[in-house]
Amino acid sequence: MDFKIALAQINPTVGDLEGNARKIVQKIKEAKDAGADLVIFPELAVTGYPPKDLLLKPSFIKKNKEKLSEIVTETDGIAAVVGFVDEVDGKLFNAAALATDKKVIGIAYKANLPNYDVFDEKRYFAEGESSQVFDVKGTKLGINICEDIWVDGGPTEAQAKGGAKLVVNISASPFHVGKIKEREEMLAKRAKENGVFVAYLNLVGGQDDLVFDGGSCVFNEKGEVVAMCKRFEEDLVVTDLKEGKKVEKSQEPVAEIYNALVLGIRDYVRKNGFEKVVIGVSGGIDSALTATLAAKALGPKNVVGVFMPSEITSKESEVDARQLAKNLEIELKVIPISKGVNAYEKMLGDEFRGTKESITEENIQARIRGNVLMALSNKFGHLVLSTGNKSETAVGYTTLYGDMSGGLAAISDVPKTTVYMLADYIKVIPRNIIIKEPTAELRRGQKDTDTLPPYDVLDDILNKYIEENKSTEDIVKEGHDPEVVEKIISRVDKSEYKRQQGAVGIRITPKAFGYGRRMPITNKYDG
Amino acid sequence: MDFKIALAQINPTVGDLEGNARKIVQKIKEAKDAGADLVIFPELAVTGYPPKDLLLKPSFIKKNKEKLSEIVTETDGIAAVVGFVDEVDGKLFNAAALATDKKVIGIAYKANLPNYDVFDEKRYFAEGESSQVFDVKGTKLGINICEDIWVDGGPTEAQAKGGAKLVVNISASPFHVGKIKEREEMLAKRAKENGVFVAYLNLVGGQDDLVFDGGSCVFNEKGEVVAMCKRFEEDLVVTDLKEGKKVEKSQEPVAEIYNALVLGIRDYVRKNGFEKVVIGVSGGIDSALTATLAAKALGPKNVVGVFMPSEITSKESEVDARQLAKNLEIELKVIPISKGVNAYEKMLGDEFRGTKESITEENIQARIRGNVLMALSNKFGHLVLSTGNKSETAVGYTTLYGDMSGGLAAISDVPKTTVYMLADYIKVIPRNIIIKEPTAELRRGQKDTDTLPPYDVLDDILNKYIEENKSTEDIVKEGHDPEVVEKIISRVDKSEYKRQQGAVGIRITPKAFGYGRRMPITNKYDG
Repeated sequence: MDFKIALAQINPTVGDLEGNARKIVQKIKEAKDAGADLVIFPELAVTGYPPKDLLLKPSFIKKNKEKLSEIVTETDGIAAVVGFVDEVDGKLFNAAALATDKKVIGIAYKANLPNYDVFDEKRYFAEGESSQVFDVKGTKLGINICEDIWVDGGPTEAQAKGGAKLVVNISASPFHVGKIKEREEMLAKRAKENGVFVAYLNLVGGQDDLVFDGGSCVFNEKGEVVAMCKRFEEDLVVTDLKEGKKVEKSQEPVAEIYNALVLGIRDYVRKNGFEKVVIGVSGGIDSALTATLAAKALGPKNVVGVFMPSEITSKESEVDARQLAKNLEIELKVIPISKGVNAYEKMLGDEFRGTKESITEENIQARIRGNVLMALSNKFGHLVLSTGNKSETAVGYTTLYGDMSGGLAAISDVPKTTVYMLADYIKVIPRNIIIKEPTAELRRGQKDTDTLPPYDVLDDILNKYIEENKSTEDIVKEGHDPEVVEKIISRVDKSEYKRQQGAVGIRITPKAFGYGRRMPITNKYDG
Repeated sequence: MDFKIALAQINPTVGDLEGNARKIVQKIKEAKDAGADLVIFPELAVTGYPPKDLLLKPSFIKKNKEKLSEIVTETDGIAAVVGFVDEVDGKLFNAAALATDKKVIGIAYKANLPNYDVFDEKRYFAEGESSQVFDVKGTKLGINICEDIWVDGGPTEAQAKGGAKLVVNISASPFHVGKIKEREEMLAKRAKENGVFVAYLNLVGGQDDLVFDGGSCVFNEKGEVVAMCKRFEEDLVVTDLKEGKKVEKSQEPVAEIYNALVLGIRDYVRKNGFEKVVIGVSGGIDSALTATLAAKALGPKNVVGVFMPSEITSKESEVDARQLAKNLEIELKVIPISKGVNAYEKMLGDEFRGTKESITEENIQARIRGNVLMALSNKFGHLVLSTGNKSETAVGYTTLYGDMSGGLAAISDVPKTTVYMLADYIKVIPRNIIIKEPTAELRRGQKDTDTLPPYDVLDDILNKYIEENKSTEDIVKEGHDPEVVEKIISRVDKSEYKRQQGAVGIRITPKAFGYGRRMPITNKYDG
């Protein structure tokens, strides 16, 4: 086909109607300058994705439509597909406008509304219809939205049957490990089985828990990739459908996870107006990974590490924390917490007289550290990144209001085994941090394995329970020790109230804690 | 009609399949002993409501069906309508089984699945069908589920047209202020317009943020109430449809709110296995109300108040706190926090040198208090109730990891103006606590009104913004000062990250923070 399309893979901000519209107009100009016939933007490009309950505000819907109208006036001599929210007879639709020469010449509505995991689209939108075929400069094209192209026998098929030679899908498809490969296979299949070009435009950027990985692309009728945008960054690729150059496919999973976390941190921090982050650096691997990701995301000068030794803290921890800061070229403050520990001992002395030392005293240390970080945050306007990983978050081995303090839980969806994978991949973390035995250092001689199985066993059980929704019985049948499984599952269930008070975390697995996993706190099911 | 029905208004626990089934069997026996022809249980009685993502566990669905089978074997000589989850061809249905003489003789499926506010039913269930009419001892009856009866021209009409003389609706309809009246008017209308008896069976009990208020009832064909269960407690009412005695209608709103909060606290605490609660009692009205509600819910001996003076705390506060404890007959511990404040000053002295006193120092005090409460909680196994009201939660006048610490935010959906209404209604709170000017006492001479408009103005703006989704422009048009409105709305938006880390709170308004209000944190919309 002699038809030039521009993939405008942009990173909008939720709610920033003004800024998003400006970005869209800018990209329309660039696409026109590059000679494109059609420029494509992601799903809900005008509002950002997901706008959640902003969609319940009538003023928000109205302004989003006004912005679309402004954008349409910029389509002189080029066609554009722009995601926005349409309202018809009081119903909202997740919509894509096709505009050219300053007029909207067609609108496609999302037909398949995801309402599972992190998605709530049936909360807001009515199911629409997108079997229509449009004509742009003699090229017949169909337009559908995100989920629509995942459905066998869905709108893509209807559009191909209706004569479309090119199917445009605009998406806001969030990353999780394995998703990129899955998506590419699906798109190849869809193009091939329908004998059409598929132009797939995915959002890029971080939005709270979600990271959109981009990788917008064009598949030809044979199911071959003929154009592809960068992953995890904004890009504009202009391609002629005549050409058929092959492009590289997905990265290795660990690189994808790394890039997703870096983008997720950067966008959460920047889009919320922060410059610097502050991180409690303990000398352990979780805080080391968090600091490393932050240094990559924001630049080392925007990362402040804080080492907060107590009398239990080992010399080894201090050496490791200092070496990490040196390797990363970040500032490291040292703030001992013994005075705080002593003060709590005195304040609570009367109440605690005659009681045994317990988890209470451990929690107090963690909370003093959390409070010190928050004080630095409040005083200097830095955002605190908390450092708990998914494995410990799952079983409640993090202290509420202690090390759980922070605006973003950077690695709360990263299982401990993946923490190690990432540390190996990144290479900048001091070797000793990686090889030493994990400990919370809240009690003398404490080791994680005192009360937990080895992390490969733990992560396998957690994966089966959390991601695969298997029961104790199922998991035991797959070869795990019944006592261990019961203990782990009981801990996961009992920690639900903690997780629901945790900071938002960046989702990198198919089932993260948070928005996509909605468990009752009051819950007597023990399966 | 010569037909005796038993309204079995039970309080199940989410996930407690065993316990819920036992309770259902017990009530079947009691109903049979009372000579009932039909006994009715609430929506999803077997699983509790809402089971949320427990529904994604295959083992949970399987066991719920096993429990239903056990229950059915107890229906010798009586018919029963029991809410459960059915699974057909891999699809889940929110279902009501009609069983008699040890057999299921019919199943109705919920046709209208709520997917707004706190409801996520389309996440789990497929839409079913409930137009069928059944015969129990010669009485023709239709069965539908919760939302189904709210819909004009819905299943009730279809069933009446199909010959039903009695329509049974099983519900899990959560309380908010005004809901009881609204529900009764709807039921009266539905009975009258269709010329049928309506037997409405509502769940009772607290489940995390939700309180189900019961008030199960029977309306005759004229739309008159002829039987009604108690509100906010379990009840079994057996009534003959021949009889037509009028019963009393709804309570005054403040009494309803009071009862809802008491039940919500009691069930959260008890169902999660706690005996006692611990509350920071400041001498202010919010903690006074929280302690009063807790004393009513759990008994005074299960409430521990903790007064934590700093050097800023006034003598008046101490007098008021002590008087409150005396009036409520609860224990009051006094734990001064000055040692903690001094320790943080020393720990942070180097870092803070040359900076001005700010909100940071106020937050440190609030966090020390939060940590002291959590230490008591960890050591003695009491649950912390946090004390923030809706108005301050809205504008972020609560300290994250400070006074926001706790397992349950008892009054986080109670606007400050309603806090005063409740205090007046309850009568046990010392007069001085009610009449003195509100202050957080985190700075010398501090008053809430230094930085906030009077509470009646604040609450009106908040109500328009949060419950009615109005824009700045709309609210200003209704007569508020533009500067004040902008400041308030900006504070609400900026506090989103805090609220998402807050403890679950009891919902008493149509739009509570938490599960029913899903706002992005990263959000540049300023409408």
